[in-house]
Parts: sequence; structure tokens; C-alpha cells
Amino acid sequence: MAVAENLFILCFLIIISCVNIPLAEAKIRRYKWEVKYEYKSPDCVKKLVITINGRTPGPTIVAEQNDTIIVELKNRLLTENVAIHWHGIRQIGTPWFDGTEGVTQCPILPGETFTYEFVVDRPGTYLYHAHYGMQREAGLYGSIRVSSKEPEPFAYDYDKSIILNDWYHKSTYEQAAGLSSVPFQWVGEPQSLLLNGKGRFNCSLLTTPSTNVASVCNATNPECSPYTLIVIPGKTYRLRISSLTALSALSFQIESHNMTVVEADGHYVEPFVVQNLFIYSGETYSVLIKADQDPSRNYWATTNVVSRNATTPPGQAIKARKGFIVPPPPTAERMIVFLNTQNTVNGQYRWSVNNVSFNLPHTPYLIALKDNLLHAFDQTPPPNGYDFKNYNIYNVATNTNVTTSSGIYRLQFNSTVDIILQNANTMTVNNSETHPWHLHGHDFWVLGYGEGKFDIYNDPKKFNLVNPIMKNTVPVHKYGWTAFRFQADNPGAWAFHCHIESHFYMGMGVVFAEGIEKLGALPSAIKGCVHR
Amino acid sequence: MAVAENLFILCFLIIISCVNIPLAEAKIRRYKWEVKYEYKSPDCVKKLVITINGRTPGPTIVAEQNDTIIVELKNRLLTENVAIHWHGIRQIGTPWFDGTEGVTQCPILPGETFTYEFVVDRPGTYLYHAHYGMQREAGLYGSIRVSSKEPEPFAYDYDKSIILNDWYHKSTYEQAAGLSSVPFQWVGEPQSLLLNGKGRFNCSLLTTPSTNVASVCNATNPECSPYTLIVIPGKTYRLRISSLTALSALSFQIESHNMTVVEADGHYVEPFVVQNLFIYSGETYSVLIKADQDPSRNYWATTNVVSRNATTPPGQAIKARKGFIVPPPPTAERMIVFLNTQNTVNGQYRWSVNNVSFNLPHTPYLIALKDNLLHAFDQTPPPNGYDFKNYNIYNVATNTNVTTSSGIYRLQFNSTVDIILQNANTMTVNNSETHPWHLHGHDFWVLGYGEGKFDIYNDPKKFNLVNPIMKNTVPVHKYGWTAFRFQADNPGAWAFHCHIESHFYMGMGVVFAEGIEKLGALPSAIKGCVHR
Repeated sequence: MAVAENLFILCFLIIISCVNIPLAEAKIRRYKWEVKYEYKSPDCVKKLVITINGRTPGPTIVAEQNDTIIVELKNRLLTENVAIHWHGIRQIGTPWFDGTEGVTQCPILPGETFTYEFVVDRPGTYLYHAHYGMQREAGLYGSIRVSSKEPEPFAYDYDKSIILNDWYHKSTYEQAAGLSSVPFQWVGEPQSLLLNGKGRFNCSLLTTPSTNVASVCNATNPECSPYTLIVIPGKTYRLRISSLTALSALSFQIESHNMTVVEADGHYVEPFVVQNLFIYSGETYSVLIKADQDPSRNYWATTNVVSRNATTPPGQAIKARKGFIVPPPPTAERMIVFLNTQNTVNGQYRWSVNNVSFNLPHTPYLIALKDNLLHAFDQTPPPNGYDFKNYNIYNVATNTNVTTSSGIYRLQFNSTVDIILQNANTMTVNNSETHPWHLHGHDFWVLGYGEGKFDIYNDPKKFNLVNPIMKNTVPVHKYGWTAFRFQADNPGAWAFHCHIESHFYMGMGVVFAEGIEKLGALPSAIKGCVHR
Repeated sequence: MAVAENLFILCFLIIISCVNIPLAEAKIRRYKWEVKYEYKSPDCVKKLVITINGRTPGPTIVAEQNDTIIVELKNRLLTENVAIHWHGIRQIGTPWFDGTEGVTQCPILPGETFTYEFVVDRPGTYLYHAHYGMQREAGLYGSIRVSSKEPEPFAYDYDKSIILNDWYHKSTYEQAAGLSSVPFQWVGEPQSLLLNGKGRFNCSLLTTPSTNVASVCNATNPECSPYTLIVIPGKTYRLRISSLTALSALSFQIESHNMTVVEADGHYVEPFVVQNLFIYSGETYSVLIKADQDPSRNYWATTNVVSRNATTPPGQAIKARKGFIVPPPPTAERMIVFLNTQNTVNGQYRWSVNNVSFNLPHTPYLIALKDNLLHAFDQTPPPNGYDFKNYNIYNVATNTNVTTSSGIYRLQFNSTVDIILQNANTMTVNNSETHPWHLHGHDFWVLGYGEGKFDIYNDPKKFNLVNPIMKNTVPVHKYGWTAFRFQADNPGAWAFHCHIESHFYMGMGVVFAEGIEKLGALPSAIKGCVHR
């Protein structure tokens, strides 16, 4: 398939470099970002994209544990608002800077400057991206890497961020309009895969203006020249691989080089070696590679789409690294089962959780909850589970009576909560899809996963309570279930949703709220849309 | 030229109809509008457009003089704000409902409902359209017609609105990004002309996806079937012709039928007969046609682009109708000369007025002025004129040092102001372009026009102070000047700008403020973007 691969080049540098950048002492790292539309050619095809300071992906944030990040974001879009989420950063004490429009803040208007300020309290590999409409797909995203103050349980010489994405030639407006249309118009397969914002579309496949193909698709445009990582023979590289695909599950591999996985979503894992790293949208991994192959040639690194019905990846089987295990609480006070189904509402295709399709309101929950604006969202909480006895997860979803709701799950502060993601058949016969779910404001312990319907009586007995990995994003596989546990210890309102952009847009998400009463006054800057 | 014509059909209905709709008694007319993106095929080519209640153009507002119009506008765009201007309605006493983002209101956010409420105090033909970014070009516009309570000086049997527009296949984002690019990327000629939202692109010229032309361009799509006006033989029709082109000056004609012009911009004119009506963006005319030709056949009505360097149209030569003359004040207290030039600023192409390129701020002037937010815009007023003695309007504009400014013209309340629009050469040798300027909140008397440089000593002697027509939009022709007078009697902040969407976007506008101190409290609904 034309779009299935993206290459980048691992080049050997023969000159030994002695560059050794000392970690900065400064604890406050300031960024001034301008967000605007520009024509770029990420995959050699010219397209309008959203840039930060002229770039997509935006600048990588490089910080040390406990640093404070201050981003002054100026919205220079013409008529569009914006909001940026700091993916994997728990925002302890700053829930209003999570950057989730409709949940934690009002959007930032054109011409406005909004200042995000938060602490990166844990080392690890994180992301940032737009969290408003489908703007992430327009190129508004980037990497965050936070180095450790403590010795790490592995050694490496160099540290590099590699961010993977899929890329569509249609605008996000066109994509969104299609998803809302009756009949439904699916986004389709991506035209390209991007690696650090670079891909390569075969211009001869282009079906746009035949009169001026060269002006639209130019294979010699440096904007789409493959990303090249020049390495020094014998050195070890930490590659921080992350994915922000709209849709695709990816495999990442480097020709003739094994990779040792050492970190996932900011947590050290018991090391394991892979030739192909499976990665879902919203996940991050660190792998170590040694530049130990014949230095007289170059090696291709590739990423390609794995079926959305992929076989089980390492994501849930990995374990926390010895010496760094944070054991989960032995029991939970509450269990919520989330049945994932595809349905229709008034003829529109939607995704639903326990037969409720999520409807993001425009008054952010955090403000509505703190200021007691009861009319801002549905006060009826959505269901805690589904009809476990009677629902056949292998049957085509026929329930066209799913409701839409903006209701939320209110969690008792500091309680321990178990979440079971239960997958099912879509509206197509013999079809179920993998969904990577991402939780804001928390990490969670991945307790287990399995095929078929989660057995509420027996499956919990198999939970790994000894050394489960902590993550913030986890897939639930076709016809399967995934279980995790978290502590509701971060006062705020937090989105939990499928990280496939179009699925969240189509209702596949929920919101948790906890400890709102413990919050002080909210910053007025987040309240622009409710001051009326 | 493929795009030069748009046809519509005048069909004769042989059955005599006796429909006689009595004027409604109700004085308040309520509308509920939902604004969103949808795929439509106005010219047979499928494109994402902004609709009102599923339509582009939006519903025609039909009202009687002194009615109150209430429009509840719900923004259902995904990430984009919106604002709608009621073009030609003076908004006496309601300057906050003029709908001009950055001048009279904050934009309406996605999910918000904003209620416009204003009185249509004069009979006539008006328009509404988006006044935010370049959204008007995305299809967000419509007609307003206000019938008279008093007898009119002409008779007709039926009253129809015909709105003309040009149409581009590129999105407004792409157009705007091109205009801001270095090097400059011009919008280009329109792909189609629309008549009541319908045009006809020749699908065989389509250069987009060759694999599925039929799905993109379908000549049998009813959305692009020609607008048909069925007429009854012997009857007289009042056609209210208006133009909202992005760029083009148009000519409108009906095969074998003369047209008698009787109204312009809401004012009765001394009737005159034309075969071709020249109309500029922002202008409205009423013409009478009699269905007096052979009823056994149909007649095409056409609109086509006239050169942007058009010869003088009737617009400025027409006179107010006897019996309806409102004489202008004999003298003015202030004269402002506006030199129109094309320049560059930091490599970007811009349009300038007196060597200042207008920069619309994001805190609306009305709010900044009323609440004394001095930092919201440049406090230095822009120049009252240009270097009349030394500037050669026939030379290529070479001044690349034009400044951008958000400064405004503060007018003494109730003073009489003369405006001279002075055209000049662009940055291209031997090139000057016609610009239709539109004034918000006022009508003005068109005093005169001429070729070459306006002579401040002698030309005013030729002003028509006897029976000048009042308008709200007037063209200034290439290398020419246009003079008008108005009374600064409407407390508020009012935009005055070239009605070519891209020219205003590129800085061709100014703002007048008058009588702010006379205004009561501003509605909080317009202040959403400044409450921080």
C-alpha cells in the first residue's frame, strides 16, 4: 500500500563527536509560541497546516524533572480558536492548564495570548497537541521530553524524540463535515505517514490539479526530505517514540537494529527487546538502540500501519521495572465498565460508551462544577456499566436509540477506581476495532486484559497487582477487554477518551470529576466563554 | 471566459395567478438560525460551505418598515467563531448589533447563541453577511427586503430578491493564507458566478480528483440547477438586485427586457432605463421589468464579470427621485481625503489608506471606546489626507514603508463630514483598480466623482448639492475620485472599507467613531472576548 510506510534514515557519522550538553540549571522554561495557518508540504504535497512558530510539528519541549514550563500561546488563526493539551502531564494543582476545550478551559480566541504554566513533575516522554475540534490533525502537535534528576536504570549516549503521525490531504473541516454527514463519509486511509513531520507521497498518484501537479506535489521539497538521524558508531541512542495518529496503529522498526524498550508513558519498564514496536495513538515509548552495525552504509527506519484490528501488542503485557515498581492499592472502591459500541443517532454515525454518545459542552466542566453552573451540562450521570448478562458483544450493534449526553462521572476524592474497557462488534458484521484510550490528569495501573466479555467475578482474580506498568494510554482490542486502576487524587475535571481523533469527535469519551471542592479560585483566563 | 456568465431563466407562466399576500401586521419578526459547515454544490462542484439552516444563501428576511428583526444565531461551527453584519441597516440606537467583529462586537463562539435585535427603519433592499475573517466567501450571506408603509413612487405586481456573488473552489482559509504569504498568492479569478446561490461550473474543466470527477462535479445536481423566475405575462416585477462578490464587478441583464432602475441602497432614484446593470460588491438596486415579451418562450438572465477597471457605471451619476430628495447640508465641517494605494509591509502585499494599512484589533472598538481601554488600539489618529502636492497618482506605488495601524478617526458628534476617495496606481505599471467602499451605520450623499487627482479647491464647486442620491456603498474608479458627505449623527464605532473581501483583509479600511459618550451600557453579550 502506498501509504503504509514512512522511511527515515539512520546515518553513521564517522567523526567522533564529543558534544555533551550539560543539563540546564534553570527551573523555569519559557516559550513564546505563535499559532497560525501556513502552507507546508509535510509529505511533499502542499497543504494548509497549523504551525507553531512556523513549524509542524512544533518545537520540542526539553526540560528537567520539576521544571516549570511557561508557554505564552498567541492565537494568530483568522477565525478559529485553539487549545493545547499537555499529554501525559498530570497538571497536579493546575487542572485548568490541561488544555482541553470544554473540559478545563474556554478556547483561546484569535488575537488572544493565553499563558499555560505547569510543572513537569516526572521524567519521561510526553506529547502536546491541540485538543479542540479536530485541530490536532491540522498539524498542531509536538514532543515533550523530561530528563530525570535521579540516575536512570539504563545508560545511553544521546537522546532523540521521534514523533509519528498519519496525514490526510483533506482539511480537518472536510474530515469533520464528512463524519457528521448523513450518509456518513469516512475519513479513509491516510495519504501518508509522517515521522517528525516528514513523509513522502508519491506525486504520480496525485489526483489534484493536473495542470499544475508540480506546484502541489514536489518530491524535491526539503520540507519532505526524510528525517535523518546521524549516529556515531558504538554509541547508544535513546529514541523516544511517540504516536499521535488520527487513526492508525503503527509498527516502527529500524533495519538491522533491535530495540530495547525501557520506558512507556513516563514509566520505566522491565526491558524487552523488539524488532517492531507496535504503538497506538497517544502512547509513548523509549527504546535504546546501539549503533553497532556496519558503519559504511545507512539504515532505513520505517513505520507502517498495522491493521486497526491488530493482534495484541506489548502495551498491556509489559511490567514495571524492578526497583521502580509503584504497587497499586490492593482493592478498588468502585468499578466502572465501559462498553464501546458503534451506533447511530438520528442517522449520524456515532461511537458510544454504555450506549451513551458523549456530547462535549461549550461551558468547560471545570468552570461549571466550580461555579455551580448546573445548566451547563446534563446532571444525570451516565451508566456505570451495561447489560452484561444480555448484551452479545459479537453481535452487530443494532441499538440506534443510544442517547447523547454531556453527563459526567463524579468520583469520590482519593477513592480507587477500576475501569474496564469492554470492546464489542461495530455496526459491521464480524468487525471490532482497537481503541487506544487516554486518561487526562492521572496515570493508571494496567491490571490486565483479555479476549471476549470481561467476567466481573473471575477476571479480577487474574489482575496483576504485583508489578503492573503505569500508563496514561492503553488500547482495548477487538472483542476484548482491558482493565486498569487509578487513584482519584487530582482535583479537577478530566477527559478520558479514545485517542483516535474522529472517534472522540463522534462521541467516544467520558469525563471524570473529583475533589472540585478542594480547588481555589480558577484563573479568569480560562473563563472567557462563560463571562456573559 | 468560462466563468464570465451565469444564466438564470425567466419563464413565462401562462396561468394568471391572483396570489396577493397581505403585509403581515406583526412588528417583531423572529428568526432562529443555525450556522454550520455542510457540503454543497452551488456551482455543481461539491465544496464545504457555511450554511444558515442548511442553506446558502441564507433565508431572505422579508419585513416591513419599522419592524424589529430578532435573529437568534447559534454557532454550530466546530472551532470557528462568527459574526453577521446587517448591510445597509443603520442600527440607530443599536450600534452593538452591527455585527462587525473587532469593531462592534466580540465574535460568537462555537456553541454560543447570540441574539441580534434591530429595527429596519427604512424601506429598501439590504443584505446580510459574515463580517469576520473571510467567512462571507464561504457562503454566509443573504438578502433583506423591507417594504414601505407609504405609497411608493412606482407600481409593480411582484417583488423578488436576486443576490449575485462570485465563487471560488479554494477554501477561505486557503485564500487568506495565500494573501498573507510571501510571495503573495492572489485569489485569482472566480470559478463561477452565483445567482441566488446557483451557478454552473463546466465539469469537464475540473482538474480535481480525476478518479471521481462525478462525485465532485455533477451537472445534474439540483443544487446547481439554474434559478428560474416564473413570470405572468403582462405583470411588472420588481427585482431587487444585490451583489456580494468577493472581487468582481458585475453586469446583469435579461434577454430582450429593459430594466428601469428605481432604487439604490434603500433610496428611490430618478428612474432610468438600462439594458445592463453594472453593480459592485455591496451595492443593491431595484429594477422594474415588465413581462411583455413573447410568452411562448423563455428568456435568459445573465450576469458576467466586467473588468475590475470598468468604465464609469451609473452608480454615481444617478439622482434622488423627485419628491423624495433629502438635501445634504450645504457645507461640511471636516473633509478627509483617503488615498487608496497598494503597498507592501514586511514583504506582504497590503492595501493602504493615506499610507496606513488598517489592522483590525480583537478588542472591539465600541467596547474599547466606551470602557476606555486605551491599550486596545493605537491612540494616534491616522492621517487626514496625503501629500496632495507631491504624490503622483499615476506612478507605481513604491512606498514600502507604509505603516500598519489600528488608529481610528474620531468625528465630532453631529458634524457633517466630507469624504474624498482618491484612487491611484497600484504596484503594477499602468494599473489602477475600482474599489467599492461601504460605510456602516450611515447613508451618505454622493456629491460627485471625477478622473485624476481631486482638486480640493475647484472640484467641490461641482458637487451636486441639489438632488444627490444617498447610498451606503460607492465605487471609486481607477485613477479617479469619489466624493460624499455624511452626518456623524449615529453614536457608535463604524467601519468604512473596501467591500472586496480580500482588500479589507489586506488593510483597506478605516473606522469612524462618534458620540460614544451618548451611549448607554453596552450589552454584555458583545463583550465575551474582553472579560478577562
